[in-house]
Amino acid sequence: MASSIGMIGGTGPEGKGLAARFARAGLEVIIGSRSAERGEEAATDVRGIAGGKVRGGTNADAAGADVIVITLPYSGQAETLEGLRDQIGDKLVVSTVVPMQFAAGKVTMLQIEDGSAAEETQRILPEAHVVGAFQNLAARKLFDVEHELDGDVIVCSDDKEALRQVIWLTEQIPGLRGVNGGPLASSRYVEGITTLLVHINRNYKTESHVKIVGI
Amino acid sequence: MASSIGMIGGTGPEGKGLAARFARAGLEVIIGSRSAERGEEAATDVRGIAGGKVRGGTNADAAGADVIVITLPYSGQAETLEGLRDQIGDKLVVSTVVPMQFAAGKVTMLQIEDGSAAEETQRILPEAHVVGAFQNLAARKLFDVEHELDGDVIVCSDDKEALRQVIWLTEQIPGLRGVNGGPLASSRYVEGITTLLVHINRNYKTESHVKIVGI
Repeated sequence: MASSIGMIGGTGPEGKGLAARFARAGLEVIIGSRSAERGEEAATDVRGIAGGKVRGGTNADAAGADVIVITLPYSGQAETLEGLRDQIGDKLVVSTVVPMQFAAGKVTMLQIEDGSAAEETQRILPEAHVVGAFQNLAARKLFDVEHELDGDVIVCSDDKEALRQVIWLTEQIPGLRGVNGGPLASSRYVEGITTLLVHINRNYKTESHVKIVGI
Repeated sequence: MASSIGMIGGTGPEGKGLAARFARAGLEVIIGSRSAERGEEAATDVRGIAGGKVRGGTNADAAGADVIVITLPYSGQAETLEGLRDQIGDKLVVSTVVPMQFAAGKVTMLQIEDGSAAEETQRILPEAHVVGAFQNLAARKLFDVEHELDGDVIVCSDDKEALRQVIWLTEQIPGLRGVNGGPLASSRYVEGITTLLVHINRNYKTESHVKIVGI
């Protein structure tokens, strides 16, 4: 199915972690950044630990891939995606973004007018086939490619074929299962789970995942 | 610890299901309702399947218990709790309420000014020690007391001792584990998970639970 994956804002921990897992799965990965140099640096890091076909470039370079994965911080999402609308067009776009705010030691979700970061992405990229996924995975565990994962990725979209493709993409990563979470509007609950996991991780000094039991 | 549990609005599927599990665990349960007769009917049903010390009565009767568990529909929460403020006082109060709306085949969360049903309960009962818990359990599986449960109950409170007591209470039910989800404000994410599970259950024609892996 997908032959290349472009990571928009792929130089942070979540972007590099997912890139490493996709590269391990044999997919071609382009790590995009505002600066091509930083994209290339991140690609060198990822190749170093995961091998595979990983290159770096600008976000526009990454937007040329078959499937676009957004790993931007929420604060940079609107501006960056508006600048890539034409390159992205009607491609499959995966939103991993969680609109979390860390302030005075407290973690909370930002109030998003569209309901979720994923729905905001759909509004900014009206022709794209937007899917919410991968929001709940701990970046450090993703990047540690020798660590076996064990968790569910809840996948939400209004487009059944796009949802099916992202479940397939999820299951290229050993230890992960894609779970159909329903419409794109359900992404708000999945994004919320990440905030909850931050609290749980603090309480138990761990990096936890979520699993849906009974399906 | 808790010697009696009072279920406010305990005649619905969630209330009867939890009451059955608490009764099986050897706890004394009072099922409250607007009408004492309906409370008694529900108690007869629960005793029939679970045995134990279960009696019915009004919501005010249930509010006399050591620990108060709220299993009201969200629409009835504010009015009912305002009428019980004095009886409840500074007791331990567990909110299981999910502010879900079913309209035109779609499931969504209501926008709650306080952030969650649990935080609204804390505002209405300012002296109570409010804890959010048990929102994500499928009612039918709870009531089927021969069915072995396997899931996590995410417990949220600003009061550490209350949180500890509700984790204890959770673990009186075989197969359930209590997980410290952080402050009461985290309840909004836990309530959201229920809405997500409704979507997942529709997609997979099942009744799913949630588990936190890695703690």
